[in-house]
Amino acid sequence: MNLYSLTPLTPGFLDAIKVFKMKTLQLLNPKEIRALIRKGKWAKPTAGLAMGYAQANLVILPQKYAFDFLLFCQRNPKPCPLLEVLEPGRFRTEFLSKDADIQTDIPRYNIYRKGKLEKTMRDIRSLWKEDFVTFLLGCSFSFEEALLRAKIPMRHIEQNKNVPMFITNIPCKPSGVFRGPMVVTLRPIPPDKVTRAVQITARYTSVHGAPIHIGDPSKIGIKNVSKPDFGDPVTIKKGEVPVFWACGVTPQAVVMNAKPELCITHTPGHMFISDVLNEELASY
Amino acid sequence: MNLYSLTPLTPGFLDAIKVFKMKTLQLLNPKEIRALIRKGKWAKPTAGLAMGYAQANLVILPQKYAFDFLLFCQRNPKPCPLLEVLEPGRFRTEFLSKDADIQTDIPRYNIYRKGKLEKTMRDIRSLWKEDFVTFLLGCSFSFEEALLRAKIPMRHIEQNKNVPMFITNIPCKPSGVFRGPMVVTLRPIPPDKVTRAVQITARYTSVHGAPIHIGDPSKIGIKNVSKPDFGDPVTIKKGEVPVFWACGVTPQAVVMNAKPELCITHTPGHMFISDVLNEELASY
Repeated sequence: MNLYSLTPLTPGFLDAIKVFKMKTLQLLNPKEIRALIRKGKWAKPTAGLAMGYAQANLVILPQKYAFDFLLFCQRNPKPCPLLEVLEPGRFRTEFLSKDADIQTDIPRYNIYRKGKLEKTMRDIRSLWKEDFVTFLLGCSFSFEEALLRAKIPMRHIEQNKNVPMFITNIPCKPSGVFRGPMVVTLRPIPPDKVTRAVQITARYTSVHGAPIHIGDPSKIGIKNVSKPDFGDPVTIKKGEVPVFWACGVTPQAVVMNAKPELCITHTPGHMFISDVLNEELASY
Repeated sequence: MNLYSLTPLTPGFLDAIKVFKMKTLQLLNPKEIRALIRKGKWAKPTAGLAMGYAQANLVILPQKYAFDFLLFCQRNPKPCPLLEVLEPGRFRTEFLSKDADIQTDIPRYNIYRKGKLEKTMRDIRSLWKEDFVTFLLGCSFSFEEALLRAKIPMRHIEQNKNVPMFITNIPCKPSGVFRGPMVVTLRPIPPDKVTRAVQITARYTSVHGAPIHIGDPSKIGIKNVSKPDFGDPVTIKKGEVPVFWACGVTPQAVVMNAKPELCITHTPGHMFISDVLNEELASY
């Protein structure tokens, strides 16, 4: 783009401003982004923000469900990799950030009652109760960054789509009211890069880890890879191998299925941005 | 030993019988050993039994402590690697074995009241309550086997001693009433094998994983490596590097410190023998 060709207020100029603003935003650190979110100045998805830093899925449940859900996560660490759990009533993280407030620092919240989405909110201080237990779970953004660094293509990113997600026939290990099948994401990988993709993601056990399945989708109950249950279909090029990773939608689906009287999650894509680097989450 | 030289009931003959019985015992599989234990025919330490199979530490707590202790383990996975947690009242494992009974299948139990050892028992069926929550945690036997396979010497095994254990100045992340310093084990490693020892144990995240510290003991608050807080001192040969791993005594110390009205553990060394191979616990 030739800057001299731009006239103020033409579409080209506005685009340039937009690119500039986005570039600036990408330079902000997690603390600065969380401050924007807290002030109500960012309510959009968080993909691409604070590159290098781990983002987390949010699940808030009343205390009476907390032991069973914690145990569900312990029993199913691949779909439910816990990054941090806060005691009843606590809304400040200790590990993922020293100055975050779970009530305000997520761009958009989904409020579910008895498993049904009631509304979305930008701030949940008005709903907060002393018996709320907060769970923050790892997300595949972290390992995708590592895969991209190794020149392993991410088709959904190339095609500017949501990652395709499928409900499998693999049952999670149940705990109390929490039960259901594992949900997986699909990434088509060139055959000469499959081993590398396993090696790289295996290091990231706190963000889903190594693949659940490599190859024939029907073996895990997926009938049609071009019809995902959630997200968008992506192109699988000739010879590419479908590789499936456990997905953070699993715990959300399991919680919805359990129909607790109240559950608060992040709105999909609108994640909690932590101060922990993805590299700090790699196995040690 | 020349068998023809043995006369019945001489010390040599009795020793041969003893060795034969021990050899036979070592050939028994976990299910057979648990059956012996259940019938009251084995109440001794389990080191060396069912080689290749994972052994587990036991902690049983009343339900009111269960969430906080589960969260303590989630926050401190290196000293407290959870292998399986049973719901309140359940005494049958699902993952570590399909036919084990936690009330009877451990050679010896310690019964603690308000943090004090009241007695040891061979069977806890008479104490069992519907609100008991059972935690089974990984133990370093699993990774020691892998280290020995790689010809990394285990000094305490060579010297037929208990592994030396030290209370460090590293605080565990607290949860509810559970708090305290991390306890570590010491293994002196030849300098050319330290990297290999890190690599090997790093694979075993569910049994304490990679070392907590390598080298200068004073950096983690250990004043004198020849005076362990628990276990026995071992020889550190000239040039050997002291390497420290998180120890399963940590959760026990933390629970004793919290003084719950009742806590049941295995008697040290008298572990639960699972049907899961150590290799199955290696990171995947």
